[in-house]
Amino acid sequence: MRMYDLIIKKRNGGILAREEIDYMINGYTKGEIPDYQMSAMMMAIYFKGMNREETLDLTMAMAHSGEMLDLSTVKGIKTDKHSTGGVGDKTSLALAPMVAACGVKIAKMSGRGLGHTGGTIDKLESFQGFTTGITTEQFIRNVNEIGLAIMGQTKDLAPADKKLYALRDVTATVDNMSLIASSIMSKKLAAGADAIVLDVKAGSGAFMKKQEDAFALAEEMVCIGRGAGRNTIAVVSDMDQPLGFAVGNALEVKEAIATLKGEGPEDFTELCLTLGSFMLLLGGAVQSEEEGQRMLRQVISDGRALDKLAQFVRAQGGNEKMVYQPELLPKAELSYPVYASEDGYIERLVCDEVGMCSLILGGGRETKESVIDLSAGIVLNKKTGAYVQKGEVLATLYGSCQDKIEAAGRRLAKAYQIGEQKKKKGPMIIGVVK
Amino acid sequence: MRMYDLIIKKRNGGILAREEIDYMINGYTKGEIPDYQMSAMMMAIYFKGMNREETLDLTMAMAHSGEMLDLSTVKGIKTDKHSTGGVGDKTSLALAPMVAACGVKIAKMSGRGLGHTGGTIDKLESFQGFTTGITTEQFIRNVNEIGLAIMGQTKDLAPADKKLYALRDVTATVDNMSLIASSIMSKKLAAGADAIVLDVKAGSGAFMKKQEDAFALAEEMVCIGRGAGRNTIAVVSDMDQPLGFAVGNALEVKEAIATLKGEGPEDFTELCLTLGSFMLLLGGAVQSEEEGQRMLRQVISDGRALDKLAQFVRAQGGNEKMVYQPELLPKAELSYPVYASEDGYIERLVCDEVGMCSLILGGGRETKESVIDLSAGIVLNKKTGAYVQKGEVLATLYGSCQDKIEAAGRRLAKAYQIGEQKKKKGPMIIGVVK
Repeated sequence: MRMYDLIIKKRNGGILAREEIDYMINGYTKGEIPDYQMSAMMMAIYFKGMNREETLDLTMAMAHSGEMLDLSTVKGIKTDKHSTGGVGDKTSLALAPMVAACGVKIAKMSGRGLGHTGGTIDKLESFQGFTTGITTEQFIRNVNEIGLAIMGQTKDLAPADKKLYALRDVTATVDNMSLIASSIMSKKLAAGADAIVLDVKAGSGAFMKKQEDAFALAEEMVCIGRGAGRNTIAVVSDMDQPLGFAVGNALEVKEAIATLKGEGPEDFTELCLTLGSFMLLLGGAVQSEEEGQRMLRQVISDGRALDKLAQFVRAQGGNEKMVYQPELLPKAELSYPVYASEDGYIERLVCDEVGMCSLILGGGRETKESVIDLSAGIVLNKKTGAYVQKGEVLATLYGSCQDKIEAAGRRLAKAYQIGEQKKKKGPMIIGVVK
Repeated sequence: MRMYDLIIKKRNGGILAREEIDYMINGYTKGEIPDYQMSAMMMAIYFKGMNREETLDLTMAMAHSGEMLDLSTVKGIKTDKHSTGGVGDKTSLALAPMVAACGVKIAKMSGRGLGHTGGTIDKLESFQGFTTGITTEQFIRNVNEIGLAIMGQTKDLAPADKKLYALRDVTATVDNMSLIASSIMSKKLAAGADAIVLDVKAGSGAFMKKQEDAFALAEEMVCIGRGAGRNTIAVVSDMDQPLGFAVGNALEVKEAIATLKGEGPEDFTELCLTLGSFMLLLGGAVQSEEEGQRMLRQVISDGRALDKLAQFVRAQGGNEKMVYQPELLPKAELSYPVYASEDGYIERLVCDEVGMCSLILGGGRETKESVIDLSAGIVLNKKTGAYVQKGEVLATLYGSCQDKIEAAGRRLAKAYQIGEQKKKKGPMIIGVVK
C-alpha cells in the first residue's frame, strides 16, 4: 500500500477502505507518512468528503492510535459529556455533580485549551489545591466511590488526532464535518465512556455559526458514537450570546455553584437540565427526559448536587470550603463597570467580542505558554432582549491591570448594540439529535 | 502575508494576486514555507484551478526563482522548441539542424529525463565525445557562430519548479493544466529564447491521453508564452503509436540522420517540417508555413541540414564522422526479431508497451542512477494500419542481454494487435494553437 495511491483515490472521489485508513493513520502516527502527503490528503478530503463509514473508520483508527482507557472496573454505565465550546461555557462544572448526585457515573477527561477562558481544568483549579493530575487508578477509584472524576487528557490519548489536528490547523483543512467529528469523537472513544452526550453549540460565539452546520456535525458525531457501540445523543444549543452571565474562570465557578443551588441563570439552568436528563437516560437512571429533569431538580433543591461538587473537589485535593463559601474563590483586585450610553433594547451582544474582552483581561490563553488569571473576567448584567436606561450598568469587568481593564471596557461597550427593537431571543435548546 | 491565508483563499475559490504568488514561490524556494503547506495549496489548486493571470504569475515567479539566462549577446531571434514527450521522440535531433541550416538561431537547454529512452542529451551522447556540459559563454559563442547549441539545464534553472515538481509528484497534484503548463514554461522562459515552438503530444503513448487535454495544455502554454512576451506556437501531434520506427538512443540518432538526408519515416518527417516551418516563421526567416516547408526541404535535399548537424556535433566535442557514417554509432551485440503470429492488419500497437520494452532492453532509465545502454532499443518494421503475413518481421530488438531481449521480445509481440480490420491511421498533425 502506498500513501500516494490513497491520495489519488480520494482526490478522484473514491472511498477509502478501513485497511487503507488504518494504514494511513498508523503510518502517520509513526512518522512513516510525511506531513506533506497527509496535508494533501486532508485537502482532498476537504473537497471530496468522507462517507459515514470512512468517518467511523478514521475515528476508530485515531482512537486506537494510543492508549484506550479501560473503565471496565467501574461498575455501571459510565457517561461522558462534550461541548464544542463557546463563551461562558461552564456547563461541566454544574452538570457533572448534578448527574453524579442522581447516581449516574461520570468519568471524564478534560482539556485546558486555548481561547477566551481556560478549559474545564483551569476553571476547576479555582478551587485551592484542586488537581486533575491524578493516576488512572485514582480516577477509577473516585468514579467508583463518589460517582465522579475528571482527569487531564493523558499524552497518549489519540496521539494521531493530536498530530493531525496540528497539521490541519496550519493547512486550512480544519473545516470539514467528517474531520471535525472524528477528531472530537476519537478522544471521547479512547476515554472509555459507555454513553456520550454532546453539546453542539450554534451561533456567532460558536465554531459552527450556522444552525444547519451544527446539526450536520451533531449527526456525524452521533453516527460515529453509535457505530462505535457507544450510546450517543447530541443537543444543539444556542451560542449567539454568552451562556449565563459569567465569563472567566473563578467567575464561572461561582455561577456554576449558584446553579447547583437553584439560583443560576435561566438559560444555563435549562441547558444543564436538558443535557443532564439525557445523561440520566443513557445512564439508565430514568425512563424519560421528564423524569430526568424532575430528578435533577430534586438533587438541586435538596442540596445533594452541591454536596456532590464538594465531595468531588475534596477527592481531587481541592478546598471544599470554597464550594459552600464561594466568596473564598480567587477575586480580582480591580473591577470596572460598563454603562449604557443610551436608553433602549439590547439588540445584539457580539458574543466573540465578549470572549475577546475576557482574553484581554487575562482570563484566557493566547498561546500555550500564557498564564491565566483565574480571577479575571466579566459578569454581564444585561443580555440580548433586555431594556436598559442610559447610565445603567451593562456589565462589570474584573482584572488586575488598569490599562487592560479600560481597554477591555471600551471594547465591551461596543459589543453591545442598543436600539429600539425588542429582539425575540431564540430558544436555548435548538434541537436534539438522537 | 501568511501562507495559511493564501491556502484558505484558494481553497475557497479565490484568485491569488501576483504579490501573493511571488510571496509563496519565494518563501517555498527559500524553505521558509514548509512542504506540508505547499502540498495543501497544490491540492487546493488541483480542485479550484488557476485563471490565466494566476498561471502566468506562477510561471514568472518560478522562472525568476533562479538564474534567467541572458541571450542578449546572440544576434537575431533565438528560438527554442519543447516536446511534452513520447515514445521514439527524436525530434530535436533532426529539427534543430534543419532550422539552423535555414538561418534561424537555436539556443536550447535539454534534459536527460527518466523513461523509456534517454532525453535529447543522452541521445546526442551517442556521438563519441559529444558533451552538453559547456559553459554559458561557449553556448552563446556557438549559437552566434554556427546558429545552434544545446546545453544541459543548469542547476539554477527555475529551482522553484524543480522543488515544486518533486513535491507534486508524491502528493498526487501533478494533473492540473495550470501547474503542468507553468512547470514547462518556467524553464523555457528562464532559458532565454525569444520564440518558442511547443510540440504537445496526444494519445496512448503521451502524458495527455485525450486530444482535448492536449489542446487545453497547448492553449495554457501559448497564453503563458505570449503573456511573458515570447512569441509562442503549439502543435498538437499524434502519439498514439511511436514516432518514426526507431526507439532507443543511437537507433533514434540514425533515424534522425536519415531524416536529415530526406530518407526518414513519413510521419516523423512531416512533424519536423511542421514544427520547423513554425520556427522559421517565428524566427523571421519566412513569411508563411508553406515557404518554411519549402526552405526546409531545400536544406535537406542540398545536404546543408546534415552538414549543420556535423558542425554542431563537432562544436560540442563530438565525432562528426559518425554523422556521415552512422554505422560507426554504438551498435548492440544482440538482435532479436519479433515475428507476426498470423496474417492480418495491425489494428493497434500499444505505444506505452513499446516504450516499456525499450526500458527493459536498457535504453532508458528506471531511476536517476540507472546507466543507459545507448545501443539498445527497437526498430519497428510495421506500425498501425500495415498488413502483415504470418512469419513476417514486425520489429527487431537490440540489446546486450539474452534474457532481457527475449523477455522484451515476448512483451513486444503482445503489444501488436493483429486483426481483419484495416484501421485508418489518424493524422500526424492534429492541430495548431497560435
